[in-house]
Amino acid sequence: MSQYWSKLVHSLTPYVPGEQPKINNLIKLNTNENPYGPSPKVIAALQKEAADTLRLYPDPNSDALKQAVAKYHGLNSNQVFVGNGSDEVLAHVFNALLKHDKPVLFPDITYSFYPVYCGLYEIEFETVPLNDTFEIKVDDYSKANGGIIFPNPNAPTGRLVALADIERLLKHNTDSVVVIDEAYVDFGGESAVRLVNQYPQLLVTHTLSKGRSLAGLRVGYAVGHPDLIDALHRVKDSFNSYPLDRFAQAGAIAAMEDQAYFENCCQRVIETRRVVVEAMQRLGFEVLPSGANFIFARHPNHDAAHLSGLLREQKIIVRHFKKPARINQFLRITIGTDLECQALTSALESMIKS
Amino acid sequence: MSQYWSKLVHSLTPYVPGEQPKINNLIKLNTNENPYGPSPKVIAALQKEAADTLRLYPDPNSDALKQAVAKYHGLNSNQVFVGNGSDEVLAHVFNALLKHDKPVLFPDITYSFYPVYCGLYEIEFETVPLNDTFEIKVDDYSKANGGIIFPNPNAPTGRLVALADIERLLKHNTDSVVVIDEAYVDFGGESAVRLVNQYPQLLVTHTLSKGRSLAGLRVGYAVGHPDLIDALHRVKDSFNSYPLDRFAQAGAIAAMEDQAYFENCCQRVIETRRVVVEAMQRLGFEVLPSGANFIFARHPNHDAAHLSGLLREQKIIVRHFKKPARINQFLRITIGTDLECQALTSALESMIKS
Repeated sequence: MSQYWSKLVHSLTPYVPGEQPKINNLIKLNTNENPYGPSPKVIAALQKEAADTLRLYPDPNSDALKQAVAKYHGLNSNQVFVGNGSDEVLAHVFNALLKHDKPVLFPDITYSFYPVYCGLYEIEFETVPLNDTFEIKVDDYSKANGGIIFPNPNAPTGRLVALADIERLLKHNTDSVVVIDEAYVDFGGESAVRLVNQYPQLLVTHTLSKGRSLAGLRVGYAVGHPDLIDALHRVKDSFNSYPLDRFAQAGAIAAMEDQAYFENCCQRVIETRRVVVEAMQRLGFEVLPSGANFIFARHPNHDAAHLSGLLREQKIIVRHFKKPARINQFLRITIGTDLECQALTSALESMIKS
Repeated sequence: MSQYWSKLVHSLTPYVPGEQPKINNLIKLNTNENPYGPSPKVIAALQKEAADTLRLYPDPNSDALKQAVAKYHGLNSNQVFVGNGSDEVLAHVFNALLKHDKPVLFPDITYSFYPVYCGLYEIEFETVPLNDTFEIKVDDYSKANGGIIFPNPNAPTGRLVALADIERLLKHNTDSVVVIDEAYVDFGGESAVRLVNQYPQLLVTHTLSKGRSLAGLRVGYAVGHPDLIDALHRVKDSFNSYPLDRFAQAGAIAAMEDQAYFENCCQRVIETRRVVVEAMQRLGFEVLPSGANFIFARHPNHDAAHLSGLLREQKIIVRHFKKPARINQFLRITIGTDLECQALTSALESMIKS
């Protein structure tokens, strides 16, 4: 607190990201990173950037990267916006497209950065409860709004909304922007990107942190109608001309181009997820159906915080959200390698049987 | 324009950065980049980051980098804030510390991103004219204000304010934050960082883009009282938890640690500047005294836009600002290598004598 702070600063409740422990030899299943490193072609592209040319500014518009993203999705580059992680992209989205007289709508249980952005930009919001089985029901969003946003699959539940449901929402909700945050779509979801040419109010955001194994590089993007993209550029160019450094641009281009490597990593994660879900169900866990690279699970007889603490003693880190109360008996567990997941289920087995 | 835009978007006038031409073999003296590449130790540190660990998030708090900056300046790390270029740092500064009921003050001729930030955050501002010789006179800032910001040396003039004058300003202006933007201080200016322990309202911003030869890496920082830094963290953590990727953190740490390399590069630029200034004065140019890695010069008999166009025909790019009218006869010319600067002065000589 200080007399020098702008009024806004006093009222902020900043986002708290998952722990990034500075300890080695952990089995780190708490922040939904990919267990497999980026493509060797990405590494090679990045090595080239460690050069004298770093004295020069990067392309402020990331044109080559936008072209690579557009090509991957079969779009034009004026339908693509890129940013410093999808968190930065989402921040600009809230400011440029979701700040209106009516409240923005999002689920009551979802990515906890959304209400933080609303605090930063002084946007009114209203949460829409998930149903009893923790699903987003799009018909619940049929009310006056200044915009709608949800992740698909949702975080931290992992549950998917079918593309037909998203299209039904778009048909009814034409007066405000609908943002589908597809951070986790690469692990079995059906992307709404194919709908952007039909619905000018649809914006879809992606990250390279999950499926493309590049959490350390900070690149995300949004695709949608050129008018929506234009709004994002206007805000971005009033904030920071050069958000993506030379490494981020070069590495992201190489990652978008190596489709085979990317699809293979995602398939391996999906296969491991299937094995983990079965093992946990055998241990008596209720596991929500997951379309993401994590699962959300609870045990009828074992307290989540307690289990999380016991796992930590064995150097296995998972994420436990203390609130809201509806989910405080769940653990969110990232899908790691097969070996990491075997260590996890063995540890859980000994806890549950003891 | 679109019904989906937030009201704010319609009113923005985004910043236009200097051109980054995608042509080779240019003599690029338009965006104040360092003519010398980064330290070999920086390159080595960056090469190490092109690795499997990119699948993991970076440290969201950049703790090791803050420690490196603090150590360099003899401060504590709670006096340091880091961001994705000093442009991002400045954006957060305007939002967190300069948005008050009274207008923020800055020079009429200065970094043209300042009014853009005011537009983004809806901050009232008032410009204070430079004097007849294009100097910032701190006594002109003795009026009611919600904050004061100027670059030292100023851009695009290159003129320095003496540290004693800044201290006089701080003694009188205690109710609002004073931001000294030292993007170009490494080329002969006297840094105000030494005053931050005495003046809790002083914030000093730096970039690694100029003196440290890392424009392509996007790292800047602010130092000041922990309360000011705390405000910046609160805004940053409401916007993007991870603004600095793994390369930016590792490269910036190595750059802060290699003081000898950095000082040598800056000295070479200062020496080349002396030679260029003399050569241009011989050609009849009026050159403002510069404490930066660029000079600001006009010729009594030759139109600036015309000269700029002629230089471009010879593949030499300098920056010409069409407005405000007071400076539209000046060229801003980055100090390049000795060879680049010889090419520049030879080209100008043939234009002026023809």
